[in-house]
Amino acid sequence: MTTNQKKHIVVYDTTLRDGAQSEGLSLSIEDKLRIAHRLDEMGIPFIEGGWPGANPKDGQFFWRLKEEPLTHAEVVAFCSTRRPGKLAAEDPMLQGILSAETHWVTIFGKSWDLHVTEGLHTTLEENLAMICDTIEYLRSQGRRVIYDAEHWFDGYKQNRKYALKTLETALNAGAEWLVFCDTNGGTLPHEITQIVREVFQALPQIQATGVQLGIHTHNDSETAVANAIAAVLEGATMVQGTINGYGERCGNANLCSLIPNLQLKLGFHCIPQAELEQLTETSRLISEVANLAPDEHAPFVGLSAFAHKGGIHVSAVQRNPLTYEHIQPEKIGNRRRIVISDQAGLSNVLEKARSFGIDLNKEDETCRKILQKLKDLEHQGYQFEAAEASFELLMREALGEREHFFEMRGFQVHCDKGAGDINSLATVKVTINGKDILEAAEGNGPVSALDAALRKALMNFYPEISQFHLADYKVRILDGGSGTSAKTRVLIESRNCHKRWSTVGVSTNIIEASYQAVVEGLEYGLILHKQAKLAVTNAYS
Amino acid sequence: MTTNQKKHIVVYDTTLRDGAQSEGLSLSIEDKLRIAHRLDEMGIPFIEGGWPGANPKDGQFFWRLKEEPLTHAEVVAFCSTRRPGKLAAEDPMLQGILSAETHWVTIFGKSWDLHVTEGLHTTLEENLAMICDTIEYLRSQGRRVIYDAEHWFDGYKQNRKYALKTLETALNAGAEWLVFCDTNGGTLPHEITQIVREVFQALPQIQATGVQLGIHTHNDSETAVANAIAAVLEGATMVQGTINGYGERCGNANLCSLIPNLQLKLGFHCIPQAELEQLTETSRLISEVANLAPDEHAPFVGLSAFAHKGGIHVSAVQRNPLTYEHIQPEKIGNRRRIVISDQAGLSNVLEKARSFGIDLNKEDETCRKILQKLKDLEHQGYQFEAAEASFELLMREALGEREHFFEMRGFQVHCDKGAGDINSLATVKVTINGKDILEAAEGNGPVSALDAALRKALMNFYPEISQFHLADYKVRILDGGSGTSAKTRVLIESRNCHKRWSTVGVSTNIIEASYQAVVEGLEYGLILHKQAKLAVTNAYS
Repeated sequence: MTTNQKKHIVVYDTTLRDGAQSEGLSLSIEDKLRIAHRLDEMGIPFIEGGWPGANPKDGQFFWRLKEEPLTHAEVVAFCSTRRPGKLAAEDPMLQGILSAETHWVTIFGKSWDLHVTEGLHTTLEENLAMICDTIEYLRSQGRRVIYDAEHWFDGYKQNRKYALKTLETALNAGAEWLVFCDTNGGTLPHEITQIVREVFQALPQIQATGVQLGIHTHNDSETAVANAIAAVLEGATMVQGTINGYGERCGNANLCSLIPNLQLKLGFHCIPQAELEQLTETSRLISEVANLAPDEHAPFVGLSAFAHKGGIHVSAVQRNPLTYEHIQPEKIGNRRRIVISDQAGLSNVLEKARSFGIDLNKEDETCRKILQKLKDLEHQGYQFEAAEASFELLMREALGEREHFFEMRGFQVHCDKGAGDINSLATVKVTINGKDILEAAEGNGPVSALDAALRKALMNFYPEISQFHLADYKVRILDGGSGTSAKTRVLIESRNCHKRWSTVGVSTNIIEASYQAVVEGLEYGLILHKQAKLAVTNAYS
Repeated sequence: MTTNQKKHIVVYDTTLRDGAQSEGLSLSIEDKLRIAHRLDEMGIPFIEGGWPGANPKDGQFFWRLKEEPLTHAEVVAFCSTRRPGKLAAEDPMLQGILSAETHWVTIFGKSWDLHVTEGLHTTLEENLAMICDTIEYLRSQGRRVIYDAEHWFDGYKQNRKYALKTLETALNAGAEWLVFCDTNGGTLPHEITQIVREVFQALPQIQATGVQLGIHTHNDSETAVANAIAAVLEGATMVQGTINGYGERCGNANLCSLIPNLQLKLGFHCIPQAELEQLTETSRLISEVANLAPDEHAPFVGLSAFAHKGGIHVSAVQRNPLTYEHIQPEKIGNRRRIVISDQAGLSNVLEKARSFGIDLNKEDETCRKILQKLKDLEHQGYQFEAAEASFELLMREALGEREHFFEMRGFQVHCDKGAGDINSLATVKVTINGKDILEAAEGNGPVSALDAALRKALMNFYPEISQFHLADYKVRILDGGSGTSAKTRVLIESRNCHKRWSTVGVSTNIIEASYQAVVEGLEYGLILHKQAKLAVTNAYS
């Protein structure tokens, strides 16, 4: 299965072009530059930057990149073949792509006869001329050309002979790469295998001229990654895809899954191993830049990808990880997570303590106490899987190591709705260093009012609180069947400029559940701040 | 490629067992019953219900299902082989599974020698005895057995001979199905193809005895769907998976992609075509029940799966959809979304009106007005798929047919927390028949206090309100990134002794969002009561 050992596979990233077509994703030029530089650092050799001329943003991006050039990667401009009935040299679209001044350009052309006659309203012969002229013209202007054969697989199934002719035309005109695009995303892996194999047989000049094949897949059948692998196993040497699988409709082939599959399982070389270890961070960074919540269940790079529940299972995975993990998470910069849940055993608690930097011994009475407390709280509806900061506070409390920065004495929340808008007001009473503080604030809901009042009360004593932000707020009704009297669980994610942490609260009163999570979020932030200050002091002492 | 035309593929759903292992997913017994009944309606033949005895919830589920039995589907109890060194008949774990009183049980056993010696700490021979005894004992108790070969592919690669022996043992002991489980999710499609092919060659008794093969895959390599398809193309006739691909780590094979791939592209029969057209709705319903945000980019059933942008593309797709869509979205109950045109929506509104018994015409100005209102509200975060009562009220409002039983003038909510418990108090002001009513009530949270005050205010005028109950209450934060200022959507399900109905509210203030949903829930209940009374009067007149 791995006859292609150590063969290089060229990764072609199209996050900035095809990925940016994703519904709900919108990238500024600054965002695009940041992503391009990150991909460059990762060792991705080709980065498709956009279609210069299609919109002002894409053109500007290429210019800005000249001021802050990439180190290794080639940035590629993307464009279609010339318009029907025009000369390539006179088509303003192609002048646009030349003005981007890249070494490489990607030209897409039609492979499917129906798209030529019904989409472009031109003849099959003219389409061949468009492919030929465009590539020859760009070659004459010193560009190297990648040819994207749009709708390849559908076109091939409908009119094999014509599809092959388009590919042969691109090859003869001087394209160095021929890329099979499954534009509609409907093809299944066994079809990819068969068709790529047939193309190699039908066009022996591919191997004779040293032209190489690439694969560009979409995820409409949930097989984009498998489709790309199928083509590689048949001899394709370029894979096109996007980080996190972003892309229109259901997305493109996900490079965060494709690269580790090719490199760690099939023995191909895609990017340096040291860079592969940055994959998880890259995935999360790019989802941050794109302002999209990361998919926690994403293969390889997701938060849950190497999460283990349950006692026996946990001790087994610690003894021999490969019996329960398909790859070592460290190889792609992810890590094993022992999930705290009601199936937890002592080994889970110990593992967690270690990750918090807390020294705990299996024989300690405290260890058993923590486990019991955990189970009691989970029975009440608390859930610590996604609230590790609350779990660490619980652990420190049990060990008598929890520092109390402030003491909550009480709060009041008031919402008032008349004919117009609703008003929300909160007051809080806090004791800090023996001093009682009473503060009030408004918000656009009861919880935001409470949060605001609390921050106001603490700010004079702990100004660092101004750097803590609420990053996420989730509410879950635990027993919906009891209606509005149901228990409510609130999860809050907080962040400062370095870190994120999550806390939990549970109550039949949603305000109180939120309050618990908000208070612990602030308390944990203060611990982090103190630890960071201490680390700096130690470094200088 | 489609030599298996019209061959039946048996779908085995494990959403309630393996799917429930998904981090962040927690299902009550009510939730599980609702999902089971939906899967049954879809025509899924096997529904794995859980591991009776592993926790009280799973046991109760099987008992509750006897009170509300399924129509067609077999519900299956899941369990491991007996413990090492015990008699099957004396293993309490197997008594647990028998007490669920199902026709079918699924037993999983170890295929990988390393897991036997290191995980179970027993001998390879004892593991074979465990497989044999367990199946024979369950057969003697009248059960039909599906055998899940855990870690099949990894085990086979490490020790082919032993792995085959475990399978042969299960077969000889009377298992009717042998299921290949890729437990760690690390196997790639071409390996599945090869190994399944080799097993058929190595164990000719599979075909001789009529025992059938199944496939159970996980998505850790992002190839779960492709892996299942690979096994089916080699002769497996059962696919195991979950709705929306829920499952631990990166999830299981997603039935919402697998079923349409098998049925619409490869010509297999999985479920009746009419039920396949409910797939999108089922996917969304189950994500609502699980209280997880649906994946908008999900293949086949996602909101973006058939979204088209731009002018030319749109007219092309309207002329000949198959040039831009890999399948017809209607075949799985999804729809094409033309981002710039509202044509798609009109027929929906008409369809809905018909289902409410409202006479509406496509040419009516009102129809367009309702559609616009609907779109405005959806843009604000309202969602009517799971809140049909609110949608009906909206429609009646637009038609000038909405009866106003009461007029809300305002409310106040007050929560007060000191040293002890939190107190919640609400006051409401309502006008009924020109009379102002002011009432106050307490509750164990602000929303239950508000609900109580509202009922108190209305009760004297509409005593039937005492028969309305809140059956379910769900809260979803729509844009968690804005923290406690986020928009909140509340869904409330109400019931009387005959019917259930759902209403929705949206606001940045959770109290107000809940209030909207509660008020509409009461209003709709009053409409239903009046209609029922009218029907009775008519029947006697």
